[in-house]
Amino acid sequence: MAERLFAELGRLTGGPGGVTRASYGAGENLAHDIVAREAKRLGLPLRRDPALNLFATLKGRGEGPAIMIGSHLDSVPNGGNFDGAAGVLAGLAVLSGLVEAGLAPPRDIVLAVIRAEESAWFNASYIGSRAALGLLAPSELDSVRRSDDGRSLADHMRDAGADLAALRAGTSGLDPAGIAAFIEPHIEQGPVLVAQGQPLAIVTGIRGSVRFRRVVVQGEYAHSGATPRALRRDAVVAAADLTLRLDRLWRELEGQGKDLTLTIGQFATDPAEHAFSKVAGRTDLSIDLRSGSAALLERAPGLIRQIAAEVAEEHDVAIDLGALSGTQPAAMDPGLMDGLARAAEAEGYAAPRMACGAGHDAAIFAQAGVPAAMLFIRNEHGSHNPREAMTPADFSAAATVLMRFCLEADGLVLR
Amino acid sequence: MAERLFAELGRLTGGPGGVTRASYGAGENLAHDIVAREAKRLGLPLRRDPALNLFATLKGRGEGPAIMIGSHLDSVPNGGNFDGAAGVLAGLAVLSGLVEAGLAPPRDIVLAVIRAEESAWFNASYIGSRAALGLLAPSELDSVRRSDDGRSLADHMRDAGADLAALRAGTSGLDPAGIAAFIEPHIEQGPVLVAQGQPLAIVTGIRGSVRFRRVVVQGEYAHSGATPRALRRDAVVAAADLTLRLDRLWRELEGQGKDLTLTIGQFATDPAEHAFSKVAGRTDLSIDLRSGSAALLERAPGLIRQIAAEVAEEHDVAIDLGALSGTQPAAMDPGLMDGLARAAEAEGYAAPRMACGAGHDAAIFAQAGVPAAMLFIRNEHGSHNPREAMTPADFSAAATVLMRFCLEADGLVLR
Repeated sequence: MAERLFAELGRLTGGPGGVTRASYGAGENLAHDIVAREAKRLGLPLRRDPALNLFATLKGRGEGPAIMIGSHLDSVPNGGNFDGAAGVLAGLAVLSGLVEAGLAPPRDIVLAVIRAEESAWFNASYIGSRAALGLLAPSELDSVRRSDDGRSLADHMRDAGADLAALRAGTSGLDPAGIAAFIEPHIEQGPVLVAQGQPLAIVTGIRGSVRFRRVVVQGEYAHSGATPRALRRDAVVAAADLTLRLDRLWRELEGQGKDLTLTIGQFATDPAEHAFSKVAGRTDLSIDLRSGSAALLERAPGLIRQIAAEVAEEHDVAIDLGALSGTQPAAMDPGLMDGLARAAEAEGYAAPRMACGAGHDAAIFAQAGVPAAMLFIRNEHGSHNPREAMTPADFSAAATVLMRFCLEADGLVLR
Repeated sequence: MAERLFAELGRLTGGPGGVTRASYGAGENLAHDIVAREAKRLGLPLRRDPALNLFATLKGRGEGPAIMIGSHLDSVPNGGNFDGAAGVLAGLAVLSGLVEAGLAPPRDIVLAVIRAEESAWFNASYIGSRAALGLLAPSELDSVRRSDDGRSLADHMRDAGADLAALRAGTSGLDPAGIAAFIEPHIEQGPVLVAQGQPLAIVTGIRGSVRFRRVVVQGEYAHSGATPRALRRDAVVAAADLTLRLDRLWRELEGQGKDLTLTIGQFATDPAEHAFSKVAGRTDLSIDLRSGSAALLERAPGLIRQIAAEVAEEHDVAIDLGALSGTQPAAMDPGLMDGLARAAEAEGYAAPRMACGAGHDAAIFAQAGVPAAMLFIRNEHGSHNPREAMTPADFSAAATVLMRFCLEADGLVLR
């Protein structure tokens, strides 16, 4: 079933440049309709909350909070077919497998189909899961606007059929206390599982971040052939030194056993002023540090500021780090990690543990007090591009492990 | 007189963005008219060669090849008032001073007002001096086109009144054997004289160059939070390492007493692909090495290639250095340097010696076999921008030294 649905999604929302499913736009609406149609075919009752998150429930034998499995269906512009959709279809595959086998799980199993996870459209993240959990400020409905057309989030949600009055009144769709576990299967967005030859991994936590998105290194433009070394204030050499010193900081912290990544993703002299025959007077760059450790994220801005001050001093340039932004890390639930590990082991998968470097709805559920977990599925070529590549076999491995988890999860694992 | 002429030039060819005197365009024509008018006022015979280079001669007492003093009058778009013009007006000041004092110099003194020195307009350098010395290929008249309007050099020269038939026949305006010395006064384009507190310098040679203008460092785009250190092929870190290793090469060669500058003036990730949350998959940069030593320029591409290969290997990226271009260095004449040094000393100026890192018409005269020299005049803020700043006092110092040189130059210095 999943292969057929991936193909249908790809056909209906894909184009020459990749897959495009705009949050609260045509592609996401269409994907939600497909999943709702399939859930109905399985005879599962559907519910839509005011923000149009979709929930399909398979009743369990016993009482107690439900197990929720899901992810999102929107994509970045010209993205891939699997980021988000793989998690939703894995949940659907679990429900479909249980229904077809006539098995009643110990608890209710809820497929969660979340809206608007990507920040590419509205420059705001996790709109759907935040709305579901009462964490979307009503003011965002009007202040957040779609990047390309400038229309408000409220306008786009209304077009899709959302209940704006309920959202403005602060009505949330989910009670955290009613959820024993939120499990988000997702393609790995990095290359680790491919490198390790493993189909699945259990996520230990979602890294938070410290970001200096607009760093300016200000030196002085000068003639390349006529300005001696000692009289230069070279913004490229200074920024290169800053880059390598930050890279060394990463290596040192990693050597101390710290979890982090550190990336200078953007680095540019000024196209309006630079020339091959000029010493560069200005370089702009970005710094993105991510870590699962709240303590390290707390220390990081100070460490970066100190290095920047040393570089500025040594190269006689000014370094303006600009605004600091960032996110908090989200720890995954240890009991759920252990339960997933046992299920994976029983199905014959090693399922190494690893930190997750990208943000996901699971972090919002964790922040709302819901025990959360993520199961990574091997994927080549990263995500947010049409070359995302998850094999049907790896997808099946994830669905199989999740089905076993749902059948075997008991009071020791679930609250 | 010079202050009045600088003011007239600035008023008539300056705008809000700076001074613009297009090669063979309105601004350069106007500047030539002003200088011709002044030379006529002094009663000096004028000659224009087929390329419209202008020569004004003050007859000397004796025979023998002439002393030529001059520079160019064109500017880059929105440039400054002194690059080029200072040298022409210094020559004019010498002639004016001699005429007004009624002094006949030992040799003929020729003011040379050269056309089209800047490469900003036609993407070809030294058009005027090359034409004067028979070094402009007739094919360039049609193949070289003005960057902004696409019209050929021939069209623009014809509009200005040049003799295209003579140029196509290869007629040159000057006989190198008839010139004992070509002396080009010019504002310093770097900050050395300001830093040293000296008004004048004697140029030892015009540096040649080795250029890799379009270097591509190719790595792999990856998620900044999800890609561990060991699995990255980071084009920014690799390019930063390349930058610092090249900077170290400069330091080492300079420590060995070599003359050079080395500049990475352009350095940029790809705006269409980069993001603060992506490991960079590509960086483009430029390498400009200049030296007065032909031997070092010969060795430099090999040294750079070796460093690039080491960086590519260590960072698992590909580095394509692209096309190599460059120019030969031009040595200034030792006898002329000594003669200028004696004249400067007699006038009370230390006049340190320094290499010149930018190209100038004097290099073309040297290549044609004419003994050449350059006298640098202190200037703040570099050149090719409206902030060029030469003081009237420093300009007068240059004119005074040159006048003494012309009066005292004898057979020991001049051929």
